[in-house]
Amino acid sequence: MEVLVKSTIMPCPLLVSSMLERGANLFSDVAIISIRPDGFRHSYTYRDLRRRSRQLAAALQRAGIAQGDRVATLMWNEHEHLEAYFGVPSVGAVLHTLNLRLHPDDLAYIVNHAQDRFLIVDDVLLEVFEQIRPRVQFERVFVVDHGCGALPAGCESYDAFLAESIVEPSDADLAEDDAAAMCYTSGTTGRPKGVLYSHRAIALHSLAISLPDQLNLSCHDTLLPIVPMFHVNAWGLPYAATMNGSKQVLPGRNLRSKTLLDLLQNERVTVAGGVPSIWLAVLHALETDPSRWNLTQGLRLLVGGSAAPESMFRRFDKLGVHVIQAWGMTETTPVATACKLTPYMHGWTEDDRYAQRAKHGLPLPFIEARAVDDQGETHKDGKTAGELQVRGPWIAGSYYGLDQADKWTADGWFRTGDVATIDTEGFVKIVDRLKDLIKSGGEWISSVDLENALVAHQAVKEAAVIAVAHPKWQERPLAVIVLKDGSDVDASELRAFLGERFGRWQLPDAFVFVSELPHTSTGKLLKSQLRQDFNDWRWERS
Amino acid sequence: MEVLVKSTIMPCPLLVSSMLERGANLFSDVAIISIRPDGFRHSYTYRDLRRRSRQLAAALQRAGIAQGDRVATLMWNEHEHLEAYFGVPSVGAVLHTLNLRLHPDDLAYIVNHAQDRFLIVDDVLLEVFEQIRPRVQFERVFVVDHGCGALPAGCESYDAFLAESIVEPSDADLAEDDAAAMCYTSGTTGRPKGVLYSHRAIALHSLAISLPDQLNLSCHDTLLPIVPMFHVNAWGLPYAATMNGSKQVLPGRNLRSKTLLDLLQNERVTVAGGVPSIWLAVLHALETDPSRWNLTQGLRLLVGGSAAPESMFRRFDKLGVHVIQAWGMTETTPVATACKLTPYMHGWTEDDRYAQRAKHGLPLPFIEARAVDDQGETHKDGKTAGELQVRGPWIAGSYYGLDQADKWTADGWFRTGDVATIDTEGFVKIVDRLKDLIKSGGEWISSVDLENALVAHQAVKEAAVIAVAHPKWQERPLAVIVLKDGSDVDASELRAFLGERFGRWQLPDAFVFVSELPHTSTGKLLKSQLRQDFNDWRWERS
Repeated sequence: MEVLVKSTIMPCPLLVSSMLERGANLFSDVAIISIRPDGFRHSYTYRDLRRRSRQLAAALQRAGIAQGDRVATLMWNEHEHLEAYFGVPSVGAVLHTLNLRLHPDDLAYIVNHAQDRFLIVDDVLLEVFEQIRPRVQFERVFVVDHGCGALPAGCESYDAFLAESIVEPSDADLAEDDAAAMCYTSGTTGRPKGVLYSHRAIALHSLAISLPDQLNLSCHDTLLPIVPMFHVNAWGLPYAATMNGSKQVLPGRNLRSKTLLDLLQNERVTVAGGVPSIWLAVLHALETDPSRWNLTQGLRLLVGGSAAPESMFRRFDKLGVHVIQAWGMTETTPVATACKLTPYMHGWTEDDRYAQRAKHGLPLPFIEARAVDDQGETHKDGKTAGELQVRGPWIAGSYYGLDQADKWTADGWFRTGDVATIDTEGFVKIVDRLKDLIKSGGEWISSVDLENALVAHQAVKEAAVIAVAHPKWQERPLAVIVLKDGSDVDASELRAFLGERFGRWQLPDAFVFVSELPHTSTGKLLKSQLRQDFNDWRWERS
Repeated sequence: MEVLVKSTIMPCPLLVSSMLERGANLFSDVAIISIRPDGFRHSYTYRDLRRRSRQLAAALQRAGIAQGDRVATLMWNEHEHLEAYFGVPSVGAVLHTLNLRLHPDDLAYIVNHAQDRFLIVDDVLLEVFEQIRPRVQFERVFVVDHGCGALPAGCESYDAFLAESIVEPSDADLAEDDAAAMCYTSGTTGRPKGVLYSHRAIALHSLAISLPDQLNLSCHDTLLPIVPMFHVNAWGLPYAATMNGSKQVLPGRNLRSKTLLDLLQNERVTVAGGVPSIWLAVLHALETDPSRWNLTQGLRLLVGGSAAPESMFRRFDKLGVHVIQAWGMTETTPVATACKLTPYMHGWTEDDRYAQRAKHGLPLPFIEARAVDDQGETHKDGKTAGELQVRGPWIAGSYYGLDQADKWTADGWFRTGDVATIDTEGFVKIVDRLKDLIKSGGEWISSVDLENALVAHQAVKEAAVIAVAHPKWQERPLAVIVLKDGSDVDASELRAFLGERFGRWQLPDAFVFVSELPHTSTGKLLKSQLRQDFNDWRWERS
């Protein structure tokens, strides 16, 4: 073999610290706003963020944190959390954001599984910490003081820890595939599984989501990440915003829709990210009192986490607010697809455009997506569903300390467990979770499609559709409905309403009205619970 | 030492082929237009581009091209060139774009230095090939047939070569730091020096230049790269456009301003890239006949290669056309900085905004820039000039087969040879080439600033300012002027004109009027020639 010609480009790793350096060097006076638990508006700049991140880094080094060590956070969206986002990886340690909504059993499990050494915790979250404290062994615990409680025994002040550090952190010799951050999945089945994000994955993800055809993030933006920073790095938005020098507004713990609308208005937010339930509540508040808020023209709302109903796009458009759907999961850093119309789609009918916008969109550059059916065939007809599989430089290739090879195909693609169609334009549409599909008489019925159609009915607040065993058809759909306060509707009206869009065989065979639905810690419908609740259901006719 | 925690992200190299796959999969019907030498408009799609690139790849493999082998091109901007951009690197070979404007001595030198095995050449460029043919040893030469000449003996048809290939290319096992393309510098001193671009550098560069705060490239754009594809990969624009699925318009060899304006209008171009001399000619044509062309609203002109005069920004703005300056060089893949105003600058005075836009802008994400003075100090005051040094994942770390370590600092930064200031906002402004600065009595005078001021005078077509040895001041500036046809102006008027903006000591001591100025092969002022011409100049007063 002859010698191959390597490039003459300098070896220069993609590191998280480069993004903070850019923000702090080029946008030093741009503001980062944090809303305290008591509503106080704290404001500082990228220059301050760098100073304090470096203080944290130096303090961690001095306290004995070495490359590869895990430092956990139990925090809301606030500047101290952002300091950890950059300070922890800068010394080669791994930021482990704990999802405060997890059950204490799961929280204790992941802290022990990740072998977290230190914890940084908000004082308002000390009660969560106390629930797991007997079962975990943090060497040191630093409390962010919002004046909401005395420092418990055995804990230290975060600010005092930073103040100790009078020297600059020593340079860490980092490789771009070193872990910078880690998250655990909040799956409804099995134990949480850990994903370790590399510096490189976070850097590439920041570039890709910022592109004009994706989330279009720039220094002209003011970003409000409502999606928690303890949930897949708030979709990577804080990293991208820092790289781009965007103003950031970190909303803390108060996520009531009117508070969020006040923030959107007062901080002149241009782009915000949250799950559908957040935006549906915001939409309701806006529609109820349309003249109350004066939002920024061209405001974009990023929606992800679960499928947004098409009606949400239409209703926000009427208010001059543009909703953009993206898709991803813990294993995809997390954004893998984003949905923006391509040029010729602007000539489509309004209905076709909305149907397209309610999809999950195109894979980002360097990400590949395919939908593989039971026969191992891939389809691009927009109709034939298959398991969504993805591959690319910010997709997980394994779980931390866990052998679960069945989540990857023999040819190296990650099996998402989502069922999707891909249309001729390449747009991905998540039809359902593999385990939530209803298999009726050899055909698949999408529970998600039925749920999204149901919530478009004016009387319906929330809807879940689950598969229930059926003697003839194997499975049939059952709809579980929560009505809006003061609303009334019966099963036959809902059947007729769905009948306008679905075939008869796809309609739920029964409608059950309840006062609330069970949810996971991250606000997703807990269908496993519902399936259990309706395990003994008997169909009236067979 | 304990074991460091590596990430669990899948190893997935950044490859040039991923960008073509994205364009062809997601934007298969988007057009790529090529203007033939006879003016014929050829149109095909990204689907066709992939098919033919793969045919080229398979044909190259069948012909014995192995990983690391160099394949040269001598071609204008056209779809066959784009096929080589993707087809050659896809099999692990290295695309070597030959600059057809180089002197035959230099061309022969770099072909031999790079050990190019094959050549693809436009029939209209066969005469360039014939000039070097006796001195080089291509194994095979493929001619793109535009009906402009018979196939010379020993040459083969490019289309016939592609047609031979009936199989798919075999997968090459590529690493992202493998070389994908190479260019030689067209420096005015010394032999051309080769830079080998990695797949990774091209991929990262494509992401970074596409960002909203940089060139803002998207699938909604129609891109016209006037900058030649044989000149630092047309600034990487064809790669980025393919990744984003933009419509591309490849203008071929006819770059007259009226032809370009017709193209801009008829193809509804939204973004075009070229050197200042191209845009000044276009500007002149537009101003002469303003109602003749109906250009796309919001048209952006990217300018680079040499400093654009501030007057150009103002005059284009009056016509509704937005000029964006970027900076880079062969060693930087090539874009390293781009100039867009940041939010608070929109509140500045008009003059301050134009002064800022005429700078070279902010370093792209993951690129660092510093200006280092003679004492090794860096400055960010916008006044103190120093050598511009850059570092980052698409900056060259060495030259191919050449030991020239003095071009890199001990701490690993590339020494650009440009002199720049960096202001408090972080905006880089190239003041001059290190060798073109005028050292007068211990102070530096920028020849570029004087030249840009001179061409703002209505009678001046082109201006060069050079340093000439001076008995008292060491060096003093001499201005060499080409007047517009029919214009007349004398030295005292030009002195007075410059006196409005410059200190007395900065003004040229003499003005010489000539009919034309010498240029390099890439259209840059050939100052080394001018310095030689005026070597014996005697100042009248001392």
